Amino acid sequence: MSDRQLHLNVNILNVGFYGSAWRTPRADPQGFVDVGHYVRTAQIAERGTFDAIFLADAPALSDRPEYRPFYALEPTIILAAVAAATTHIGLIATASTTYNEPFNIARRFQSLDLASGGRVGWNVVTTADAAASRNFGFDNVTAHATRYERAAEFTEVVTALWESWEDDALIADKATGAFLDLSRVHAINHSGRHFTVKGPLNLPRSPQGHPVVVQAGASEDGRQLAARYAEAIFSVANTIEEGRAFADDIRRRAARFGRRGEDIVVLPGLATVIGSTEEEARRREEELWSLIPGDYSLVRIAGILKVDPAGLTLDRPLPDDIALPVDGSQTFFRATLDIARREGLTLRQLLRKLGGGTGHRVIVGSPESIADDIERWFRAGAADGFNLMPDVLPEGLEAFVDHVVPILRKRGLFRSEYRGATLRDHFGLQRAQGRPSIPALAG
Amino acid sequence: MSDRQLHLNVNILNVGFYGSAWRTPRADPQGFVDVGHYVRTAQIAERGTFDAIFLADAPALSDRPEYRPFYALEPTIILAAVAAATTHIGLIATASTTYNEPFNIARRFQSLDLASGGRVGWNVVTTADAAASRNFGFDNVTAHATRYERAAEFTEVVTALWESWEDDALIADKATGAFLDLSRVHAINHSGRHFTVKGPLNLPRSPQGHPVVVQAGASEDGRQLAARYAEAIFSVANTIEEGRAFADDIRRRAARFGRRGEDIVVLPGLATVIGSTEEEARRREEELWSLIPGDYSLVRIAGILKVDPAGLTLDRPLPDDIALPVDGSQTFFRATLDIARREGLTLRQLLRKLGGGTGHRVIVGSPESIADDIERWFRAGAADGFNLMPDVLPEGLEAFVDHVVPILRKRGLFRSEYRGATLRDHFGLQRAQGRPSIPALAG
Repeated sequence: MSDRQLHLNVNILNVGFYGSAWRTPRADPQGFVDVGHYVRTAQIAERGTFDAIFLADAPALSDRPEYRPFYALEPTIILAAVAAATTHIGLIATASTTYNEPFNIARRFQSLDLASGGRVGWNVVTTADAAASRNFGFDNVTAHATRYERAAEFTEVVTALWESWEDDALIADKATGAFLDLSRVHAINHSGRHFTVKGPLNLPRSPQGHPVVVQAGASEDGRQLAARYAEAIFSVANTIEEGRAFADDIRRRAARFGRRGEDIVVLPGLATVIGSTEEEARRREEELWSLIPGDYSLVRIAGILKVDPAGLTLDRPLPDDIALPVDGSQTFFRATLDIARREGLTLRQLLRKLGGGTGHRVIVGSPESIADDIERWFRAGAADGFNLMPDVLPEGLEAFVDHVVPILRKRGLFRSEYRGATLRDHFGLQRAQGRPSIPALAG
Repeated sequence: MSDRQLHLNVNILNVGFYGSAWRTPRADPQGFVDVGHYVRTAQIAERGTFDAIFLADAPALSDRPEYRPFYALEPTIILAAVAAATTHIGLIATASTTYNEPFNIARRFQSLDLASGGRVGWNVVTTADAAASRNFGFDNVTAHATRYERAAEFTEVVTALWESWEDDALIADKATGAFLDLSRVHAINHSGRHFTVKGPLNLPRSPQGHPVVVQAGASEDGRQLAARYAEAIFSVANTIEEGRAFADDIRRRAARFGRRGEDIVVLPGLATVIGSTEEEARRREEELWSLIPGDYSLVRIAGILKVDPAGLTLDRPLPDDIALPVDGSQTFFRATLDIARREGLTLRQLLRKLGGGTGHRVIVGSPESIADDIERWFRAGAADGFNLMPDVLPEGLEAFVDHVVPILRKRGLFRSEYRGATLRDHFGLQRAQGRPSIPALAG
């Protein structure tokens, strides 16, 4: 087995990556509001010795819910149910730094980390979503820079709260009656521009110390946040060159914060459409494409581009005068748009490349060709692994676990069994340490 | 079986009501940070066909954590784990209206309600806790009246969000591609003094419609909030007269809001110390009392009274010049203090009555005498049931379920099996309705 090992997450995007996933014969169209769906999917990923499941999120009814499933059940509630039904797989959930308080997030994720035996990660997002902002007292999305400034301070406070307890603070000695050693618990006394938080947290440390910090933003501000705090990054890359450039850039930035490159795991998104042969895979893609309801893709892309859908024609290239908003959001889409321009794709071909929704790379093929692709990226240093987005869930994941994972194992690229119990173990990250520099509550 | 049926919740106060519970031989002193402890306790309650488990909470490291377990794991995370391991029992968790946003609370509790098949209740609290306020950017506790004003608006918004979906909004028809009927989903467009929330929620309704609203405050403001919104009330009453007066008062107030008395379930707190005989029960109380660590009770009561513990003498009555803060907090304690004054108890006797911690009624006795007491209160109209606080968990609950519940069942006061599947079914409440008056998103 090679020294460097691949890491695989599955991004449980409701009932699948394709906008039409819910309409396919074996899909449960109401699975997105059934914790059982997430539990079954996670159990399949655990059978495949995946590093983690990943849940994206936004606190609002999403755009175009009349056409497809949307973010619904709150991710930490899903993860608590999944934790109870699994033993090893990591559990990563998204929570917004713009619409939460750091004490609540630190506490909820540390509670999950204790409930799961140290398997949790927190995906830090700033939520560029106008519908969300209107559910929290704002008319418009907060400016990009302000969101990221708040996100950095938020992450700093959450981490400090997680590290406010030393490992052996809890005594619980029945004989002496000593319960908690206050000399090993520390107020954080944070006072910053966005938050004033005294602390300490009201929870002990977990088997992995505290949750892993995950980040996904790829804008300039997003990269700085990731370089400073992220231990795993869910990135966007459509070519090996893009992937390598991103990983190099992040590690260079991280070094400036005194961090080591190996303390960050870079996982580009990868949407998969698997068939037993190349031809079957293409037929499957064709079917998924044909089931995308009516004008869903057109309306959605028009929404991202902020143009009238009636002004777009499917069988022509995108008009030249269309540009994306420059606020740093929609990174995933921007990458695909660049390719469309470069290759002169028609709108229909571009939509197809987007798989009916987002801008992550889509791979359509046999298990062998998908394994080849993954190995190529991994060996080229363009990825430490992937955040997989199967076309339909759970069946697309089942195909990956049953047919692609065995090839990756045979090639010595991927584990055949879990060697550790925590998410940090799976990712090859060190256990999180306390901060003895913070003054204790009692001394 | 009599028509009117008793309702029983168990308040899982960490490892038990007594400050010394964790030091008793069979207790797990670290159970308070182990979801398995809550799951096992809930399973015992479910075996006893209880209505619900109840979790109190405060978002801070509590006073005197060096002596005893404290609020730690976030309650909705615990409930998600318990939901996965039980089938019928109701699941009530506390969340603060002072330190949360209504959209997040509406969403998290509705997610739990869907995950549990409609078994959830939200206990609305305003959190009168200085340590909590310092974790959320405040130097001091927000004034009582402001907290309750915010709580009322918060509850109004949460309820409106829960009711923003009609029952059959989700279509999910694979054949036509119609997923969500936007004419049955409604923005709430709330704009008030504390919150501006557009909505709708991003979740469908649950089998019981939405979670039950529970409330515990007994101050003037607390009673108004309960009368307006609460469907179950966790009250404080030390005598049958107090219990009856409280229930009558709440129902009178509720009538002024156009609500029916039977739409509110009143459940006073009741701490239990059970022995197979009266004498064994008293010996058990003695042992629990002897295990309360050092000066814990004295320090705690001095903290509540805001006096120097050194100025208090255990074997004298409380000094006359000591008064409780008049901000409406500490209701539970106030009731006990009144009794202490009336009966001329020494501080030591008062502390004993407080069971090492709170001011709810403590009953010490055999299963028969406890069943008699419960029946007396129930028949007198002083309670629709009780929020039980066993001395030690889970063993104190096990004793209740194995020895008191059979007597209550034999007397026709309490169910032998669940007749419904939701918490509203157990409490005898109607299914929650939508609000067709809110304008639809489309249609």
